[in-house]
Amino acid sequence: MPTTTTAPPVTAGSVTDDCCGIGVDGGLTREAAETSAALLKAVADPVRLQLLSAIRATADGEACVCDLTPVVGLSQPTVSHHLKVLVEAGLLEREKRGTWAWFRLVPARLDDVTAIFR
Amino acid sequence: MPTTTTAPPVTAGSVTDDCCGIGVDGGLTREAAETSAALLKAVADPVRLQLLSAIRATADGEACVCDLTPVVGLSQPTVSHHLKVLVEAGLLEREKRGTWAWFRLVPARLDDVTAIFR
Repeated sequence: MPTTTTAPPVTAGSVTDDCCGIGVDGGLTREAAETSAALLKAVADPVRLQLLSAIRATADGEACVCDLTPVVGLSQPTVSHHLKVLVEAGLLEREKRGTWAWFRLVPARLDDVTAIFR
Repeated sequence: MPTTTTAPPVTAGSVTDDCCGIGVDGGLTREAAETSAALLKAVADPVRLQLLSAIRATADGEACVCDLTPVVGLSQPTVSHHLKVLVEAGLLEREKRGTWAWFRLVPARLDDVTAIFR
């Protein structure tokens, strides 16, 4: 029989002797982190931040796509793409009025963004 | 001479007759939006959100890299890369203590993230 012993396999949660070993527990699960990261990715874009900010700066918290286009100085298809990303993330609501699409902030969803860091 | 008239060219800032024309002004400048988007990109990642959350869940708001590795179930070089991104964004401070690097939250910088949406 061999007389040497081998160290037990180090598992993901083990702490080696020379590690501080404070034992970090808790925090976000991977699933919750994936959900939050997807929401943050929707806002982590300068054009989309400008659009959200411009809509918030209006008296009624809503704006027409035709008024948003000059704010960011991009083509209407490009602006519409960015607005669509924000709608899909739940940060804006879209409403068709006659020829134009209007976009309104969803404050509760913006609260979801800041809640990630509370 | 032709009797038909052509519409004047529509410029980026003009409002056509059938546009709502509420005149959106204000909001973030592009430069401010670029700065905020860069900060948001640093946190818009599930692993980095898990790391921030795990560090915040500790009693002292700091953790050693060796304790963070098992939290996210990734290799130490990968975890170190993500921690470096957070340090470069100013969200964590890094301190070498003996063999290991420790990471501490920078609450004021986390406030900068939420301030984007206030």
